[in-house]
Amino acid sequence: MRSLCTLPGIGQKTAERLALHLLHAPEHEVTAIVAGISDVKKKVQVCSLCFNLTQEEWCRICQDPRRDKSVICVVESPADLAAIEKAHVYSGVYHILGGALSPIDGIGSSDIRIAELMKRADPRVVKEIILATRTTVEGQSTASYIQSRLKHLPIRISRIASGVPMGGDFQYVDALTIGQAMEKRSDF
Amino acid sequence: MRSLCTLPGIGQKTAERLALHLLHAPEHEVTAIVAGISDVKKKVQVCSLCFNLTQEEWCRICQDPRRDKSVICVVESPADLAAIEKAHVYSGVYHILGGALSPIDGIGSSDIRIAELMKRADPRVVKEIILATRTTVEGQSTASYIQSRLKHLPIRISRIASGVPMGGDFQYVDALTIGQAMEKRSDF
Repeated sequence: MRSLCTLPGIGQKTAERLALHLLHAPEHEVTAIVAGISDVKKKVQVCSLCFNLTQEEWCRICQDPRRDKSVICVVESPADLAAIEKAHVYSGVYHILGGALSPIDGIGSSDIRIAELMKRADPRVVKEIILATRTTVEGQSTASYIQSRLKHLPIRISRIASGVPMGGDFQYVDALTIGQAMEKRSDF
Repeated sequence: MRSLCTLPGIGQKTAERLALHLLHAPEHEVTAIVAGISDVKKKVQVCSLCFNLTQEEWCRICQDPRRDKSVICVVESPADLAAIEKAHVYSGVYHILGGALSPIDGIGSSDIRIAELMKRADPRVVKEIILATRTTVEGQSTASYIQSRLKHLPIRISRIASGVPMGGDFQYVDALTIGQAMEKRSDF
């Protein structure tokens, strides 16, 4: 029960409920869960191209011949990749940094996969790099840092739009976002 | 108590609590509340320029000599104006439409203040009109409609940015917004 508590989002009460469920569950069900959990560690690795999670050498996106290899979308984590994939608007490939620059937490440029991105940024192959790090302070400065490292190359460097979310009522949008939306307004 | 229930956000229980409070409150307090409420209706009117709420002929923004009269920000309601004002990034004036086009609800172009906006759109005075209607379907189509009515004029027509809100974690942003943020990406 103590080990269940270490999982994110699982507190004392949920862990208790899970532990009691496991106690009463049939043997084969418990074995399946245990096997599933240990498989995660054994089988899942990172894609050797984009560092997305995969069970093979390349992830399913890098393997897909329909994906445009000339556009790389830089994200912080596999979860951010998944969020973008759900929107079904992007047909290029990704690069997962594995975090964002954060001097306060001691995360510098060598702690995230910036060198690996530089290696992939070959103008003969890549036409555009989309910086889709989060809109947090860390994400914004990571995007700025990467842009400064890439700007000498003949590759388009773009940043995802920040502003009022779709369907948004201004009263539920913070002032910083409204400010951004006004400043970054574009010709209609 | 029944009349209190008609107010937005006040249900049976809250109305009951308010009614009981008023019953036990001293006479002068109750009188002040009654006077305040009836004053709202008597004194508050709309600005004859921008249709913002005001107690005078012109609202405090239209009266302010520091506000740039050559930029008009078009919003749906005084509440949207207030949200933009809180961001402290805008120094122009406003135009309050009083709603958005919504054929389903029978709201057409003559039901909101589009004719009044057309009258204000004088290229000798106005350099830019920012369409800051909401990012809902109605708000988007209202912006498109106004743009189509104004595009023949030598006035810059712009639209507030929509995208990922500031400080946003992609996992909490809907797919439509992520799609918009990717599509509307801009050169860094």
